[in-house]
Amino acid sequence: MVSSREGDSMTEVFRWGILGTGGIAKDFADGLAELPDARLHAVAARKRASAQAFAQSRADKGQHPQVCDDYAAVIQHPEVDVVYIATTHHNHVALARQAIAAGKAVLVEKPVGLHGDEVATMVAEAQASGVFLMEAMWTRFMPAIQALQHALAEDVLGPVRLVQADFGIDLPHIDAQHRMLDPALGGGALWDLGIYPLTFSRLIFGCDPHHIQSIMIPAPETGVDELSAILARFGDGGVAQLMCGFRLRVPHQARIYGPKGRIVVDDFFHPQAFTIEPHEGEARTENYPFTGPGYQFEAAEVQRCLRAGLQESSVCPLQETLALIRIMDQLVQQWGIIYPRGAL
Amino acid sequence: MVSSREGDSMTEVFRWGILGTGGIAKDFADGLAELPDARLHAVAARKRASAQAFAQSRADKGQHPQVCDDYAAVIQHPEVDVVYIATTHHNHVALARQAIAAGKAVLVEKPVGLHGDEVATMVAEAQASGVFLMEAMWTRFMPAIQALQHALAEDVLGPVRLVQADFGIDLPHIDAQHRMLDPALGGGALWDLGIYPLTFSRLIFGCDPHHIQSIMIPAPETGVDELSAILARFGDGGVAQLMCGFRLRVPHQARIYGPKGRIVVDDFFHPQAFTIEPHEGEARTENYPFTGPGYQFEAAEVQRCLRAGLQESSVCPLQETLALIRIMDQLVQQWGIIYPRGAL
Repeated sequence: MVSSREGDSMTEVFRWGILGTGGIAKDFADGLAELPDARLHAVAARKRASAQAFAQSRADKGQHPQVCDDYAAVIQHPEVDVVYIATTHHNHVALARQAIAAGKAVLVEKPVGLHGDEVATMVAEAQASGVFLMEAMWTRFMPAIQALQHALAEDVLGPVRLVQADFGIDLPHIDAQHRMLDPALGGGALWDLGIYPLTFSRLIFGCDPHHIQSIMIPAPETGVDELSAILARFGDGGVAQLMCGFRLRVPHQARIYGPKGRIVVDDFFHPQAFTIEPHEGEARTENYPFTGPGYQFEAAEVQRCLRAGLQESSVCPLQETLALIRIMDQLVQQWGIIYPRGAL
Repeated sequence: MVSSREGDSMTEVFRWGILGTGGIAKDFADGLAELPDARLHAVAARKRASAQAFAQSRADKGQHPQVCDDYAAVIQHPEVDVVYIATTHHNHVALARQAIAAGKAVLVEKPVGLHGDEVATMVAEAQASGVFLMEAMWTRFMPAIQALQHALAEDVLGPVRLVQADFGIDLPHIDAQHRMLDPALGGGALWDLGIYPLTFSRLIFGCDPHHIQSIMIPAPETGVDELSAILARFGDGGVAQLMCGFRLRVPHQARIYGPKGRIVVDDFFHPQAFTIEPHEGEARTENYPFTGPGYQFEAAEVQRCLRAGLQESSVCPLQETLALIRIMDQLVQQWGIIYPRGAL
């Protein structure tokens, strides 16, 4: 990292390298632009032209990243402190492992991998190398989510019995080459969408589910999961009903029920508010508005951890990442979809 | 039946006998009071005093039923045309079979029985005897439900992909003797509540589900199902997510999703409206208000069928009743709850 003088205090500025230049890389770069102590330092894409276009488009936000020839050049770049991996899912693990081997702190977009054992290897290597690693599960860092967890800990609902979370989108006009349909690129609704209801339910119940069941409707073109519904039992008395799909628009809402009432969370994967509807008393909406794309919170956490010399975040610990991938492993196994494996 | 002159036309008046005097018997009697061609003719309860109190309470509605000593006396009553069975669930089948044997038309409150084979026997006996038999699944006869089915047939959503239906109530202060907790009386949320989401999803998809999965949380006192969530697949591309519970208040709402939008149905088991929310265009609420308790529609259907000399209703055919009990048989088997069996 570099130091820069702001007013009277010296601030460490973290230099980020971004791998991949799709929509989420753009949004994440917008997030970095919200942080005075973050600098977008280098970028690479599968094609150099894409990286160039991306770099040029960042000038509006005052960002002037170097364009590197390939992912490895960003990873090996001596001035890059943190690597953010935003490529297609299928090579997350391999790139993260390269970055760990290079001693770079790593933030990996979700899903961190397509196979639990590969993710476990990646985590073990980070821990053995003393390198910071975190899943880019931005939901966990939303101020509204943290306030929601606080409200539940204050027993506003009593013990949670039921969580429902829906995440259906309608991708228009995708052809058979679209990454969402291609198992080789980690296609299917689970990895992009289902991961959120799963994470949300795990966050709310605060433990691992058991007895996971599911129904999956395959996409006619390639057999990846187009629509699925998931049932999970948590602890002794909790149930989650979750769904995801990429050809059915369903409001992105979560509902949490306990003996004292319910909480409704719209846009539950990046909420700015939630509404508590107690059986006794008036409903109230708690607002946690923010500007920017919402990715700044996870980036700020990475920087907080690095500054504190931590190897992982307590808000999104590696055990949670491993637990989540194990759940998704189970589901994919139930569905019989084969995703590509990296070399271990 | 008897005939009475109304204006210039002779109207057949059907004389109803009611077995059981609980809340639903009261509501059903209110329904009969809405029909000019229905007469509440006789009533019996487990205790004669209950039947007396019930009969006296009906005077306000202009109903003066005879009080019979026991269920058999109503069933055998020479002036009773139709028997409505509203006792606790565990003896529905036995009473219905007695009524069928006595040649009386029968309307049986849901669940019609606690075991599929017993229900099948009851149905076979009605068919062999040429006696009218119908499940009192009032939801099917609601004007709003029929309009909803019509809207779906008009393809307002495109092919339905997802149905969600929630039915959770909070029974306050029930002790271990409450019928809802007693497996011997057909306790558990499924029979009273879960039957509605199941029926609703079956109605919307218009076919039998396959791949039924569920998670059940048992009541600590007796092990009957206190809370459950059910996943079912319909046809090639349809999924239902259903829940029921008697210790968790959850709005009684159903949501139906297709490629063109969604329909929200509040109080889906006896709705007076539904809202169509198309992706293109404005949301619109269609209202089908009615007075009275809503039980008049099923009673009117029974009378229509009897007048037409039909043995079963096309709106609630016996095949549908059999299909529903087979689903519930599967669930109860998954849950390992043992309900009492009648003599076959």
